[in-house]
Amino acid sequence: MAKDFPTREENYAQWYNDLVIKADLAENSAVRGCMVIKPHGYAIWEKIQGQLDKMFKATGHQNAYFPLFIPKSFFSKEAAHVEGFAKECAVVTHYRLKSSEDGKGVVVDEDAKLEEELIIRPTSETIIWDTYRNWIQSYRDLPLLINQWANVVRWEMRTRLFLRTAEFLWQEGHTAHETKEEAVEETLKILDIYAEFAEKWMALPVHKGLKSANEKFAGAVDTYCIEALMQDGKALQAGTSHFLGQNFARAFDVKFLSKENKLEYVWATSWGVSTRLMGALIMAHSDDHGLVLPPKLAPIHVAIVPIYKNSDQLAAISEKANEIKKALEAKGITVKYDDRTTFKPGWKFSEYEFKGIPVRLAIGPRDLENGTVEVARRDTLEKETYQITDIENKILHLLDHIQDNLYRKALAFREENTFGVDTWEGFKAQIEKGGFVLAHWDGTTETELKIKEETKATIRAIPLSGKMEAGKCIFSGQPSEQRVIFAKAY
Amino acid sequence: MAKDFPTREENYAQWYNDLVIKADLAENSAVRGCMVIKPHGYAIWEKIQGQLDKMFKATGHQNAYFPLFIPKSFFSKEAAHVEGFAKECAVVTHYRLKSSEDGKGVVVDEDAKLEEELIIRPTSETIIWDTYRNWIQSYRDLPLLINQWANVVRWEMRTRLFLRTAEFLWQEGHTAHETKEEAVEETLKILDIYAEFAEKWMALPVHKGLKSANEKFAGAVDTYCIEALMQDGKALQAGTSHFLGQNFARAFDVKFLSKENKLEYVWATSWGVSTRLMGALIMAHSDDHGLVLPPKLAPIHVAIVPIYKNSDQLAAISEKANEIKKALEAKGITVKYDDRTTFKPGWKFSEYEFKGIPVRLAIGPRDLENGTVEVARRDTLEKETYQITDIENKILHLLDHIQDNLYRKALAFREENTFGVDTWEGFKAQIEKGGFVLAHWDGTTETELKIKEETKATIRAIPLSGKMEAGKCIFSGQPSEQRVIFAKAY
Repeated sequence: MAKDFPTREENYAQWYNDLVIKADLAENSAVRGCMVIKPHGYAIWEKIQGQLDKMFKATGHQNAYFPLFIPKSFFSKEAAHVEGFAKECAVVTHYRLKSSEDGKGVVVDEDAKLEEELIIRPTSETIIWDTYRNWIQSYRDLPLLINQWANVVRWEMRTRLFLRTAEFLWQEGHTAHETKEEAVEETLKILDIYAEFAEKWMALPVHKGLKSANEKFAGAVDTYCIEALMQDGKALQAGTSHFLGQNFARAFDVKFLSKENKLEYVWATSWGVSTRLMGALIMAHSDDHGLVLPPKLAPIHVAIVPIYKNSDQLAAISEKANEIKKALEAKGITVKYDDRTTFKPGWKFSEYEFKGIPVRLAIGPRDLENGTVEVARRDTLEKETYQITDIENKILHLLDHIQDNLYRKALAFREENTFGVDTWEGFKAQIEKGGFVLAHWDGTTETELKIKEETKATIRAIPLSGKMEAGKCIFSGQPSEQRVIFAKAY
Repeated sequence: MAKDFPTREENYAQWYNDLVIKADLAENSAVRGCMVIKPHGYAIWEKIQGQLDKMFKATGHQNAYFPLFIPKSFFSKEAAHVEGFAKECAVVTHYRLKSSEDGKGVVVDEDAKLEEELIIRPTSETIIWDTYRNWIQSYRDLPLLINQWANVVRWEMRTRLFLRTAEFLWQEGHTAHETKEEAVEETLKILDIYAEFAEKWMALPVHKGLKSANEKFAGAVDTYCIEALMQDGKALQAGTSHFLGQNFARAFDVKFLSKENKLEYVWATSWGVSTRLMGALIMAHSDDHGLVLPPKLAPIHVAIVPIYKNSDQLAAISEKANEIKKALEAKGITVKYDDRTTFKPGWKFSEYEFKGIPVRLAIGPRDLENGTVEVARRDTLEKETYQITDIENKILHLLDHIQDNLYRKALAFREENTFGVDTWEGFKAQIEKGGFVLAHWDGTTETELKIKEETKATIRAIPLSGKMEAGKCIFSGQPSEQRVIFAKAY
């Protein structure tokens, strides 16, 4: 498979697109901008969901589900929000079709026009805060820590599988608190969860930071983010956590009776990650041979392929393979024993390689005699022969090692591609080449927009861990207290 | 809580609605016909999803995700399907809003009209079979066993929480096979999974049966179903599994090269259960004190409430309670220790009772002295004092016993409310009173519709396990080979 697959060097964008399709992750659908998430891709998304869901629940969050539709008028209630979200969206205007006059199809029934149009949710702050008004009366009802797994729609003009699609899947957390401090603490707690997930599960190093005023969420006081660097030197925003202040509580009139018996507006946060993470995961580790998956998010950890010439050999190998499978599964390792007779071993090898299965075992007649198995690592493409004795612990160790190796490799890549720059000429040259560029900025939106106009670079984050260091803005020469991270971005 | 809660006897419909809202399961939203699924309700849905998903995967199915939107023209491709589904649905006609002229809100931008309207999926056969055309070339690509967890929209005029809502959550399986036999086998395999889930997890006895031609799915050759009886004597269809023949393969031109090297149309099934199951679960077991949940679907199995007069007592009780919690959790029991000081024990007792938590433990100072704990069962409302020794096994046993008791009670109720009837007068009288009515039917849609017109009863199922027994149609007097199940239904 995948003979006509370009290398990253040849055409990075095409490499990504072909990889997504050929590794059975996703494809474009008959509906403009909407993707079909294929079984292998969806299985990875389920692993992502499962782990994040566990982390949210461990920190006291509960799941709920709010309507797909939002009445049009809700958007106008928060001024910044409507600017950011109510424009490019799918609008439901009718609720019935009827047979067409020629009897060959169906047409919209003009008699079934909605009094108020419904918007397919691009994000759910408005409908959720409209609901919270009835859920929150006193401090006893707080904090309210709710998350929703859902589909959302933003009518994007230029779409790319996983990275930017009209419909995408995500989780959106919406929490309500008594005090500003508590809401800020929640915002940062979630940012930490996102960063931990990215680094420990996705094997993807990220910077935690604050967005500039220009890049923040429409309706937020502060937007925090995790930013990662892809192999082509472009940045990818992998998750955001917003401190919303009392903006939505005011817009939807959500007040609570405080412990001091005063009516006060509720403090809010919202936060989300989406199927965009799939794009980050794919681009972070994959190579010219196809997908590379960190073991912690691989739906299958180990594929076992029998090498045989006749059915007697297959029977003998299958016995041993099933023994190994059982031993691995007892350690929590997910194993596929592929004894399909309709495909040859070489075909299976390419398939598992292309789909990013972390470890492949091959067993032939000679292995049976010697008590060995051939072990191939997807991350390094190295092969080694293992004695079968204690195979489960050896593989467990190998999987940990692969997870670790992928993280270290991605971290080294990021460090090699992070540059401190102090002159405008140097900045333009480096942005052109790619990578994270650490530079001083005067803090104004005006400067930020001019830099973007000239270089296409945006401020990805004002890093939370960045050391305070006085300097001069790369563009305006005005004083600056801290370097910020610039990059071209997805 | 729940002082103003009617009994089932007083007003069954109101009892149901109030229970759903007050037990924190769901509520109506600002959008007509769409519900908000509240945290406790959603946690139960997650338990349902988790178990079904495990059963689907254990039988070789994989999850995937297809678009929310379906191009209008797709519906017209399968004649029966368009009749059944393309009428009452949400239609997206535009993809942009703009600021209104008065600057106070947003209006639909008439320049952003879609060339072809998009329908929010009421079910996904059409978009999925359009996709399968590219996935299936030869017998090697079959069977294709795919499931999707998704939201769907059907524009219902009269809605009821969980039972009938404009938007609902569900799973829809869509499989493709080489032969008719294999597809029929799949249809029945899924029906068995649904029935097993209903009986073993929901503690809800169901009849497996075939739908009459009039009641079958629009586009199916045969629709199989599981049917349950609710406490008010009305039937509820809890799941359906459809053998689709080659109808969708023909409509979307999906052919495969067979082992005999011939191009043939693919055979199909589809099957689904939805958040409607929540309605069935609630109505099957709950009582005038609120929700009753079978332990296997309860998000929390055991609530522990401390009874104390001062903080010293609370500290001592908490120590013991946490010991018990740990011992129970080690056995896979989900426990909530509720040491909130903002609510009194009596309030907590009603809350857990109303929300259907299967077992409640209460520990006071005297219990500490005696090494005991008070154990309250939700299903029977009985209280007993247990010695704490070996508490984990006692509770494990009790939970099994409650699960079993709920099933036996529901089965006894169904048997008491199933009636064989042989005369038209007897039929009308019994249908009026409620329950499952087993009667002969001549097999024609004409008779079925007349019976429905006169009595509101429909044929719920032609039972698969029904014994063949000759008789005469209750309405027409024509010969019949088997009794079928009639009832008024949700």
